[in-house]
Amino acid sequence: MARALLRGAVGASLRLSGTSTPLAAATRFCSRAEPEPLTVRRQSHGIRRIILNNPKKRNALSLSMLESLRENIMADVDSDDLRVVIISARGPVFSSGHDLKELTSAQGREYHTKVFHTCAEVMTLIQDIPVPVIAMVNGVATAAGCQLVASCDVAVATETSTFATPGVNVGLFCSTPAVAIGRAVPRKVAMEMLITGTPISAHNALLHGLISRVVPEERLEEETLAIARRVCRASRPVVALGKATFQRQMAQGRDAAYATASKVMVDNLALRDGQEGIRAFIEKRQPVWSNTAEKAHD
Amino acid sequence: MARALLRGAVGASLRLSGTSTPLAAATRFCSRAEPEPLTVRRQSHGIRRIILNNPKKRNALSLSMLESLRENIMADVDSDDLRVVIISARGPVFSSGHDLKELTSAQGREYHTKVFHTCAEVMTLIQDIPVPVIAMVNGVATAAGCQLVASCDVAVATETSTFATPGVNVGLFCSTPAVAIGRAVPRKVAMEMLITGTPISAHNALLHGLISRVVPEERLEEETLAIARRVCRASRPVVALGKATFQRQMAQGRDAAYATASKVMVDNLALRDGQEGIRAFIEKRQPVWSNTAEKAHD
Amino acid sequence: MARALLRGAVGASLRLSGTSTPLAAATRFCSRAEPEPLTVRRQSHGIRRIILNNPKKRNALSLSMLESLRENIMADVDSDDLRVVIISARGPVFSSGHDLKELTSAQGREYHTKVFHTCAEVMTLIQDIPVPVIAMVNGVATAAGCQLVASCDVAVATETSTFATPGVNVGLFCSTPAVAIGRAVPRKVAMEMLITGTPISAHNALLHGLISRVVPEERLEEETLAIARRVCRASRPVVALGKATFQRQMAQGRDAAYATASKVMVDNLALRDGQEGIRAFIEKRQPVWSNTAEKAHD
Repeated sequence: MARALLRGAVGASLRLSGTSTPLAAATRFCSRAEPEPLTVRRQSHGIRRIILNNPKKRNALSLSMLESLRENIMADVDSDDLRVVIISARGPVFSSGHDLKELTSAQGREYHTKVFHTCAEVMTLIQDIPVPVIAMVNGVATAAGCQLVASCDVAVATETSTFATPGVNVGLFCSTPAVAIGRAVPRKVAMEMLITGTPISAHNALLHGLISRVVPEERLEEETLAIARRVCRASRPVVALGKATFQRQMAQGRDAAYATASKVMVDNLALRDGQEGIRAFIEKRQPVWSNTAEKAHD
Repeated sequence: MARALLRGAVGASLRLSGTSTPLAAATRFCSRAEPEPLTVRRQSHGIRRIILNNPKKRNALSLSMLESLRENIMADVDSDDLRVVIISARGPVFSSGHDLKELTSAQGREYHTKVFHTCAEVMTLIQDIPVPVIAMVNGVATAAGCQLVASCDVAVATETSTFATPGVNVGLFCSTPAVAIGRAVPRKVAMEMLITGTPISAHNALLHGLISRVVPEERLEEETLAIARRVCRASRPVVALGKATFQRQMAQGRDAAYATASKVMVDNLALRDGQEGIRAFIEKRQPVWSNTAEKAHD
Repeated sequence: MARALLRGAVGASLRLSGTSTPLAAATRFCSRAEPEPLTVRRQSHGIRRIILNNPKKRNALSLSMLESLRENIMADVDSDDLRVVIISARGPVFSSGHDLKELTSAQGREYHTKVFHTCAEVMTLIQDIPVPVIAMVNGVATAAGCQLVASCDVAVATETSTFATPGVNVGLFCSTPAVAIGRAVPRKVAMEMLITGTPISAHNALLHGLISRVVPEERLEEETLAIARRVCRASRPVVALGKATFQRQMAQGRDAAYATASKVMVDNLALRDGQEGIRAFIEKRQPVWSNTAEKAHD
């Protein structure tokens, strides 16, 4: 139901968050025959939905699509109102990766460089922003589209979704997708995907860690939103500190990682929300978060 | 049976390894109403059992529990009598992680620092001591309790055991557990556990590498002891060299790792037990280990 | 069928690639009673088959076997005629690892050093040559034999194949195999294999990433060749660039990896085959590869 609504709604710009009647809004905008935005952003109750909205072009990550995605990821990213981002897509293809028409010699080296720079920027921003980003996948995710899934913090996919890095078939080895995918799945799995271009099923993607959860199609929205809502129930600065620390310590050796993380634990405890959470636990009540990075009063 | 005995026995201090009638011993100590030790250590035939023994407090890793654990891990760790360590727990909770009552602002920053320092020390000692450490899990392992499982060399768990990093729910993101867990499972799995706090089943823990074996509850002791006994049948210095080398080379790049490991192989062959093993294999007999780090006579 | 032919054929030297009647060739050579080569090399349509050919010695990786393997891997490795390598074995044991008879103190430290140096060289060459290497496993792969499987880019195994690192049982911890295996499977799985020597099934090897595919025995050749043929349908320089970049960026931190890979993508697009592939895709036709590292004409 919620999903059917969404499917209808994303046909129109829904950047006006808080619009109470999306279908009406959709109708209104459609009647004005405005060009549809490449990605749609909606936000309510702390959950930002970003929807790849170019199904006719299989949600190709053209430069303008990547710029639109970057803009929607970064908009007010430090606002307390934002707690979690869900990236999904309209149509049967989550994303087919780069728009090959942009990668001919006609565009030239400088343009190509800009495309891959922007793509890498989007992929790393997803990991570096202070709120978790969840990929909600129902369909095919290939090449940079698969990289996008691999770059998110969490990925939920339907049982029939598939994942592939088929660039090798068109003479463009998926070397940038391999940065994200090689860090998500075992090397042998990554290499077989990369050198053959053969898709893997959602089941195998879960088995190998490319995604974190597989659900029947009818439960995709529900399960993804359940994860998002759990994130919303936590304190924003606590999640932000945790996410940033995870990225940081994973790039270090074990002992340096423990030094980093141990200091962060002490800092976390010094936060107002760190102390509120522990007090609430001891007092057997629900915590009331300040959601600010304020220190606790001693 | 063995398990039922153990469950009864660990109610008392069993540090007197070799006690032949644990139940009698338990009764004797209990009648003196001594406080129960936080962790219990027993040792026989090279196998040291360390049992978390504070089920009423869900085997929380309080500072004193961590210190007791460290003491029992390190006691005579270089003795030839010690070949393998099994860490298990009394009660339905393997360990619930840090004792939150110790982490309020009342204790202060210095105390918190000591807690996390000691915790990281225990976790890294497990990986750095010369004998393998096996986690034997029957129940719930959360936060630093889950970190403890992730830090062991091998982990065997019952089918109904669960694993979680729910710190985010009490405003304390599991950043130190993430050091061990992020190095054990795929990133996406780690991140979903960390940002949602949702438990994963033993089956999924196995799927993702957090544990190395899942068994029915009635076979937990048997299967864990079988692994321990296999370790005991090997030469102590050979296992020690192998374990240390594994940690060392895994922190290096591939080529440096091969340089390290290739040299170690040659050194291993120069050990008395290295040559004895190969001779025994060629002569089709059982090897007789010296279990000392002596060089072979040429 | 094809497999039965192969099994018969590899009994003889089949280095004369292009031999159209392998059984006849086998008969001819056998009648001359020449010593069989340690590894057999055949090549046709871009696919090089290297077959470990010492089943009586369980395809032990003796120094001469390693040298034979190295020679057959490196022969004309830069030739455009070579597109992919498949390593398989004759007999029920894929490979039992080092020849322990070569590792007694009689041979001495210098010889041992040479053995491990050559072994590490073979294992790293497999990852560093410009064409993908596929392990096709039907049987037991232990110690350095398991390392060989772990070192290949892709590994296909039959359901009954098993994998183990049992060196610890003969007093020689599998420290060099651990370099490859520790980078292929989760740490806990690697450690359990290493300290116990217990074999894991093909199913578990797949589950943990040691191999990339499990097939019924009767489909082993067919599925492996299907992967090899897919590689052959791609452009050689594109695959070479992709494979080399994968190894390189995986050794870097995320941001450096993206810088490396993004530059490679632009270079890939500047290749003649990079542009041909994209043009063919846009024009909805099959690409015609030059298979040379020539730049595209602007």
